[in-house]
Amino acid sequence: MKIGVIGAGVVGQTVGEAFAAKGHEVVLGTRAVTEEELAKPRSMAVPLKDWATRTSIPVATFREAARHGEILVNATAGGIALDALALAGKDAIGSKVIIDIANPIDFTPGAIDPSRGLMASVPALTNSTSVGEEIQRAYPEARVVKALNTANIAVGVAPKSLGGDIDTFIAGDDATAKALVTDLLKAFGWSTVIDLGDITGARGTEQFIVLWFRLMVTLGTPTFGIKVVK
Amino acid sequence: MKIGVIGAGVVGQTVGEAFAAKGHEVVLGTRAVTEEELAKPRSMAVPLKDWATRTSIPVATFREAARHGEILVNATAGGIALDALALAGKDAIGSKVIIDIANPIDFTPGAIDPSRGLMASVPALTNSTSVGEEIQRAYPEARVVKALNTANIAVGVAPKSLGGDIDTFIAGDDATAKALVTDLLKAFGWSTVIDLGDITGARGTEQFIVLWFRLMVTLGTPTFGIKVVK
Repeated sequence: MKIGVIGAGVVGQTVGEAFAAKGHEVVLGTRAVTEEELAKPRSMAVPLKDWATRTSIPVATFREAARHGEILVNATAGGIALDALALAGKDAIGSKVIIDIANPIDFTPGAIDPSRGLMASVPALTNSTSVGEEIQRAYPEARVVKALNTANIAVGVAPKSLGGDIDTFIAGDDATAKALVTDLLKAFGWSTVIDLGDITGARGTEQFIVLWFRLMVTLGTPTFGIKVVK
Repeated sequence: MKIGVIGAGVVGQTVGEAFAAKGHEVVLGTRAVTEEELAKPRSMAVPLKDWATRTSIPVATFREAARHGEILVNATAGGIALDALALAGKDAIGSKVIIDIANPIDFTPGAIDPSRGLMASVPALTNSTSVGEEIQRAYPEARVVKALNTANIAVGVAPKSLGGDIDTFIAGDDATAKALVTDLLKAFGWSTVIDLGDITGARGTEQFIVLWFRLMVTLGTPTFGIKVVK
């Protein structure tokens, strides 16, 4: 399928390349396609021009990526998701499925301390709401499916790389959209995709990131996941 | 050891009985030892007088339970934990170990919807803080260890009752206190107790409750846990 990825950091790059490897036609969207934007260093990821050369995946603006995609992926930081989607444009988003991977991590100085594995959420995007819910509210025609936000994205696109079976979670209001996303996740190797119901299920998976981040520091690796055991 | 449990709801009753079954001398603390308090119905738990008759465990005030305990257990709802501990009294708490099981669930009408597995945290006890941190701040001499707050308490005191191995988490500033709590948890059957470092590690485990609550509705049972897989 045609997939437009909104966000060109480590999440967008990794998921974009993984979808392309499964035969999908991916366009990666970034804020501006300029020399400066393509060359700038990216946290935990390579400069975009190097990534584009290596993968041969087209890099375009948020708007062009959104127009290209039959399915969209929100791979931005949660705090700027609504800004990025506004640049993509309501007309380009329409009623498309949006796979929302974002977590509402507060990146303001002092709110996050990687050395201790300590992070806080953006208050306006947590507690009684979530990034997923706010996107759904802003784009009521779109079919938002929260997914892939409870593990490192490298694990997200290759869950079988771990030493045991783990679970992943989806949430969204549209059953057809969730079935489609479940198929895409199974193609990455997920055997158990737990459907948490409507989009308010995003709250729990987004707030899990706080435990995830501390576990990353405790375990000394971002390469892990969780299995629900009854 | 002598254990004083602060809180007489389902968490206090269950953990109190479980510690007694392991040979500890437990006193269960409640707000007031009156006919009315002992007879009142309790959510997911029996009236205190029935529990006391069945278990033969003494029921006393928060203050008396705190005085009795060499180790204290905070088994209150997170939103009232500081009030309950104030009733127990700073002199009775002293430098004792406090095993803090509380989660900052907002029980105000509208904030919680059990039918959808939807809950919000008390804003003042989440994001950049946690119940565990606030207790440690209020009682700097005490040695707070966050524990047993990521699973149903029936699972917490009998993790081997599930169909597979699961993990539990502790966090706290005092290594000796954490070693003691780890031993108590192992006596309940926990094989893996993951130490999340200082008390700020409480944030992640407390915020996990939001995912836990949705999972409970999704899975149709409160009897489950999670295993971290590398």
